[in-house]
Amino acid sequence: MTMDPTIDLWFEFGSTYSYPAACRAEGVARARGFRIRFQPLLLGPLFRELGWNDSPFNLYPVKGRYMWRDLERICADEDLPLRRPSQFPRNGLRAARVACVEPDAAWLPEFVKRVYHANFAEDRDIADRAVVRDCLVGVVEDPDALLEASGAPEVKDRLRANTERAASLGIFGAPTFVVGKELFWGNDRLEQALKFASNERSTV
Amino acid sequence: MTMDPTIDLWFEFGSTYSYPAACRAEGVARARGFRIRFQPLLLGPLFRELGWNDSPFNLYPVKGRYMWRDLERICADEDLPLRRPSQFPRNGLRAARVACVEPDAAWLPEFVKRVYHANFAEDRDIADRAVVRDCLVGVVEDPDALLEASGAPEVKDRLRANTERAASLGIFGAPTFVVGKELFWGNDRLEQALKFASNERSTV
Repeated sequence: MTMDPTIDLWFEFGSTYSYPAACRAEGVARARGFRIRFQPLLLGPLFRELGWNDSPFNLYPVKGRYMWRDLERICADEDLPLRRPSQFPRNGLRAARVACVEPDAAWLPEFVKRVYHANFAEDRDIADRAVVRDCLVGVVEDPDALLEASGAPEVKDRLRANTERAASLGIFGAPTFVVGKELFWGNDRLEQALKFASNERSTV
Repeated sequence: MTMDPTIDLWFEFGSTYSYPAACRAEGVARARGFRIRFQPLLLGPLFRELGWNDSPFNLYPVKGRYMWRDLERICADEDLPLRRPSQFPRNGLRAARVACVEPDAAWLPEFVKRVYHANFAEDRDIADRAVVRDCLVGVVEDPDALLEASGAPEVKDRLRANTERAASLGIFGAPTFVVGKELFWGNDRLEQALKFASNERSTV
């Protein structure tokens, strides 16, 4: 038995469109014989490169209004609960570090989805240690040990390196799907990424 | 026989993603029982509202690089010829005024597609009167009369009013599909717009 070929999903916990992407990517990919590898990054440093000190959805309110309505429609289509967070964007640093403790771990997808649910369906503050802990309960054996580990210098470095690698790939927003050197930016590009990956596979 | 229900396609001649949108929208819409109404606007005034004095694809080169590659993939998928214009964005004012002479005219879709082809497949300067004229030959009876008419104050006003209406609808980019009060931004949202319109129709 060989491993299914992998598509990277680069995500940030504060990013709105990453929520439906993280929730639907695995199912859609599996149906086409692909596996999703969750790659956490921080948008803050990437946005600062563009001269932004906040989410573009806050900096440009007309884009923000559109995005929230669009997200509403997308979540309704995907049967995903959505409650507009009372704070946006929320700081995803702590959760992103947890996601870096054990890269590509089997528990990671479930944790990622729980954090998104906390942020975008329950309006909970994912910067809060207790909230992140709740997202680990029942997902890993020892939530406290994992939280503890997420504060280690090498884990912090891993997240920093991940974000730098994302930038070097040409990533400027989340979610971004990556197939080889090809970027597909946006939740709505998952299908295109899979189509591209399928064509690659059949021509190898 | 009743008229097919209509979806507005707001476009700008200088906009890259408006090119595949303008070329494929009618066919996709017709297959689902909808008609596309071409609505010209100018992005310049909308971008200035956001503080931009150029295309965001020039202001943010990392986004520009992604966009050109993405457009390449999209055009390949749609069998649309693409030659990256030597000047970007090109000034679509003259062509947009021609598109405002006779709003919703039967010849308009063909003219629109010809202008996009000139800009994005032939690398011709669509700001040039001779190029716009070429796009009218064989499309309207009297290209010169139409060009002449496009300079009339009421036509200029019509384009200005169109752009103001777009802004008041919440439009901030092109292409944007509009169904009632719902906006769908981007070439890739045509299918979502049509699905929404179909649901609206079936629940009336």
